[in-house]
Amino acid sequence: MPHTLCVSQASAARPRPHDADSLLRVAVAVFNERGYDGARMTDLAQAAGITKSAIYHHVRSKEELLRLGLERALGGIFAVLEEPAAREGPAILRLRHVLRRTTEVLVAELPYVTLLLRVRGNTATERWALEQRRTFDARVAALVAEAADDGALRSDVDPRLATRLLFGMVNSIVEWHRPGPGRAAAPIAAAVEALAVDGLSRRA
Amino acid sequence: MPHTLCVSQASAARPRPHDADSLLRVAVAVFNERGYDGARMTDLAQAAGITKSAIYHHVRSKEELLRLGLERALGGIFAVLEEPAAREGPAILRLRHVLRRTTEVLVAELPYVTLLLRVRGNTATERWALEQRRTFDARVAALVAEAADDGALRSDVDPRLATRLLFGMVNSIVEWHRPGPGRAAAPIAAAVEALAVDGLSRRA
Repeated sequence: MPHTLCVSQASAARPRPHDADSLLRVAVAVFNERGYDGARMTDLAQAAGITKSAIYHHVRSKEELLRLGLERALGGIFAVLEEPAAREGPAILRLRHVLRRTTEVLVAELPYVTLLLRVRGNTATERWALEQRRTFDARVAALVAEAADDGALRSDVDPRLATRLLFGMVNSIVEWHRPGPGRAAAPIAAAVEALAVDGLSRRA
Repeated sequence: MPHTLCVSQASAARPRPHDADSLLRVAVAVFNERGYDGARMTDLAQAAGITKSAIYHHVRSKEELLRLGLERALGGIFAVLEEPAAREGPAILRLRHVLRRTTEVLVAELPYVTLLLRVRGNTATERWALEQRRTFDARVAALVAEAADDGALRSDVDPRLATRLLFGMVNSIVEWHRPGPGRAAAPIAAAVEALAVDGLSRRA
C-alpha cells in the first residue's frame, strides 16, 4: 500500500525502534479521544504501557507523533491521486476512481484520517496539515471542474459546491463507521461512488 | 416559518422578556465557539453585554439556554416532516422535499443546527437532543426504505448506508457555510437534492 511509504520515508533519517508503529497507533487513539491539545505525554505513556522516557526514545515530542499520524493519513489520500486510474482517461472516470479509493483509504486508515479531519491549526504541524488538505481538496475540485468542462456533469450544480458536498459525504464516514467483521470498505466506497456520480434514484 | 413556533411553545408557560431571543442568539454563538462545557455564565454575560443576574432574569441555567437553542434547531427540522409535500405523494418525491427543505432549514438556522450537531451527551438536555436526532434520522431512513420498496431507488446501495451518506453530505454544510450576501440557502438545497437523488453526472 503506497501510503505506508510516507511514514517510512518520514522516519528514514533516523533508525526507529521496532514498536514505533504501535506507539503511533496508541498516540493517535489518545489524540482522537481527548483532542490533541488535551492529550499529555503522561496519557500517551499510560495508554501505551511504557514510561515517558521510553516514548522520548522513539520521538522528540508530542508534536512529532502528531506529524507522523497526519503524514500517514495524507500519504494515503495523496497516493490515490498518483494511481494510474486517477491520472489517465476521461475526467469523470478519474473522479469516480478518486471518490471510491479515497473512501477506501479513509476506512482503512480510519484513526489517522479522523485525526486529520479534526485538526484545528493551533500548532505549525496542524497548519501544515490544513495546507495539505487544502491542496488535496483543490486537486479534486480541479478534477470536478474538468469533468464539468467535458460536459460529463450536470450543468446546474456549481463544481465548487459539488466538491464541498462530495467531501462532506466522504468525510462524514469517520463520524459513524466503526471497524469490525462485515464492515468492509468496499461496499461503502461503492455506495459513495454510485450516490455521488449517479444518484440514489434508479436510472430509467 | 413553522420552526420558530417551537421556541414560542416551549416558553409559553412563562412570560419572557423582549430580548430573550437576542440572549439566546449570543449564548448559542458562545456555545459553538467554546463548546457548551467550556462556556461559563460569565462568558455569556460578557458576550451579551449584560450582568449574570440579568441572564438569570431570563433563564434559570446555562442548560436552559442550551435546551432553547436545541429546541429551535429540532423544531425547524421536525417541522419539515409535517409539511404537506413531506407527507403526501410518492416516497421518492417526499424524500426530495425533505432533503431540500432540511438543507434550507440548516442554512437558515445555521448556529442552532451547528449546536445540535455538536451535542456530546454529557447532560440530560444533550441526551434528549441526541434521542430527538435519532428519531429524525429514523424517519428519514424510513422514507428512503419506502422509496426503495417502491422500486424508485437503485437496488445496489443499502438504504441505511445511503441515509447515513445523505446526512453526512447535508450536515457537513455547517462546517463550511458562512452566511453572507450571495450565499442563499436555495442553491445549496437544490444542489443537495440534485446530487443525492440524480447524481453529479449528466443523465443521457
